[in-house]
Amino acid sequence: MRKYIIGVDVGGTSVKFGKFDLEGILLDKWSIRTDRSDKGEHILPAIVASIKETVDLKEIKGIGIGVPGPVKDNVVVHCVNLNWGRRDLVQELHLLLQDKDIIIRAGNDANVAAAGEMYKGAARGYRTVVMYTLGTGIGGGIVLNGELMEGVNGAGAELGHTIVDFRHNFPCNCGKKGCLETVASATGIISLAKENLIRSKAKSPLRRYESFSAKKVIDYAKEGDFISLKTIDEAMKYLALAIANVSLTLDPEIILIGGGVSHAGQFLIDLIEKYFYQMTDPFIKQANIQIASLGNDAGIYGCAYLIQ
Amino acid sequence: MRKYIIGVDVGGTSVKFGKFDLEGILLDKWSIRTDRSDKGEHILPAIVASIKETVDLKEIKGIGIGVPGPVKDNVVVHCVNLNWGRRDLVQELHLLLQDKDIIIRAGNDANVAAAGEMYKGAARGYRTVVMYTLGTGIGGGIVLNGELMEGVNGAGAELGHTIVDFRHNFPCNCGKKGCLETVASATGIISLAKENLIRSKAKSPLRRYESFSAKKVIDYAKEGDFISLKTIDEAMKYLALAIANVSLTLDPEIILIGGGVSHAGQFLIDLIEKYFYQMTDPFIKQANIQIASLGNDAGIYGCAYLIQ
Repeated sequence: MRKYIIGVDVGGTSVKFGKFDLEGILLDKWSIRTDRSDKGEHILPAIVASIKETVDLKEIKGIGIGVPGPVKDNVVVHCVNLNWGRRDLVQELHLLLQDKDIIIRAGNDANVAAAGEMYKGAARGYRTVVMYTLGTGIGGGIVLNGELMEGVNGAGAELGHTIVDFRHNFPCNCGKKGCLETVASATGIISLAKENLIRSKAKSPLRRYESFSAKKVIDYAKEGDFISLKTIDEAMKYLALAIANVSLTLDPEIILIGGGVSHAGQFLIDLIEKYFYQMTDPFIKQANIQIASLGNDAGIYGCAYLIQ
Repeated sequence: MRKYIIGVDVGGTSVKFGKFDLEGILLDKWSIRTDRSDKGEHILPAIVASIKETVDLKEIKGIGIGVPGPVKDNVVVHCVNLNWGRRDLVQELHLLLQDKDIIIRAGNDANVAAAGEMYKGAARGYRTVVMYTLGTGIGGGIVLNGELMEGVNGAGAELGHTIVDFRHNFPCNCGKKGCLETVASATGIISLAKENLIRSKAKSPLRRYESFSAKKVIDYAKEGDFISLKTIDEAMKYLALAIANVSLTLDPEIILIGGGVSHAGQFLIDLIEKYFYQMTDPFIKQANIQIASLGNDAGIYGCAYLIQ
């Protein structure tokens, strides 16, 4: 009997697996290292081998896969982080699995994470969700009426690369300047803090360090350090602008903030809301901006959702 | 036999009507003045009376209505331009028509215009369309997979009020500053031109006038006037930013530019594309940004689409 769903969240450094029952209850999880060598040729065989070690293929209803790049109709368009070009995951996995009855579904990792939060996390009960995953970069996920927002090129929901800043002009990995990612990710918070330390003469515990993490800036901000607070306030103002503009576009039911930076919790939400209401439709009186709840498991839950 | 569809595009100054066959062929069109007195109480009765004068109600399959305000599930949330508060159009029109077999559907006018262009205009053959109607203000319309983008509050696709400018800070009618509407509508073009005339010493035919229209600025720009060209270039740069950010959010099949300003045609598209590629996902190589084709009839066509 096909009684399990496997969620596979493929990242540039590790591949996370979840074994779920058909109701989406997580029964087991594990991870393996991502082997990006030889143009990422070993990744899919390693995924199949790892699944086979844990689950009898005959018991698998479907495998959902999240990939850090644009995905359209279960085909990866390209994926720099995995050294992949175009890949038809349904075709390739059916070949490797030697079992065409296993349903294969794929999606962009950030879209999949948003779906996971909708399925079993902070957005449970909603059908239209926008999620910002604030890590080294910023992943954007959109679910509209229960469907992942892929867009015509698979490039939907690239919210980290919407342009919001014309002042700092920090260069983005994508080649542009002014992307949300350059001013509101962990990297962006560090860039803003360094600039504020140069521009201001104010004392700050940050001056003790040669280098520091975004977490340090957030921790000192919570303790009331002026430079740190100014930095987080600026970063959240840019995020509020992005959220306001996305609200004026999609008017979603809920907006989630996830990723490592989001561990700062309500402190961030309060700063975002302070600016959000100045920037969105005056007619929107009540924002629904929340911290995501599934952490690193959002991806595998979203992969399981794809098979539902 | 119910063989006609009626499209009703309700504006603040006039109500436009279209009589369509079931294939969406426009058979007749007319308009009446909008009577906004007494909290807009006379608008719906006047609409019903005008339809009755032209068509036998028993021959009407459905009436589609576009309204200049947020609409959710055929209910107008509020509408400043018509002096309306919340109105259930299905209930009210069925009462006035005394015929519950006539299908009633309503949508926001800018969303409806985008649907009209998809149904019979420049976006024919597409299912996911974003449209900017550049007039005195800027209307935003979004159709996703054939469905009007209403959003949870009926406030979806308010693209004219996404914030794109932090330099000029022209006040917007909505109460905010920096909205796309303040820098890329006809009003915005005039504001930018006036500022450029003050800031620059360059000669310009615009200096002959005490006041001038956006059309004048566009016409002089096409003739090569420096101030006019700089103005239109700036306005289209802001529009390109908005379009780039919307593309990074929805990745739509086609983006349309409509409204009075769009009569400037390919001249505008060329300026928009110049900036668009610098601002969107580097992976998007080919934009599909076009001038809308139905003009003022986009609304009634979209109303007819609602009944399909």
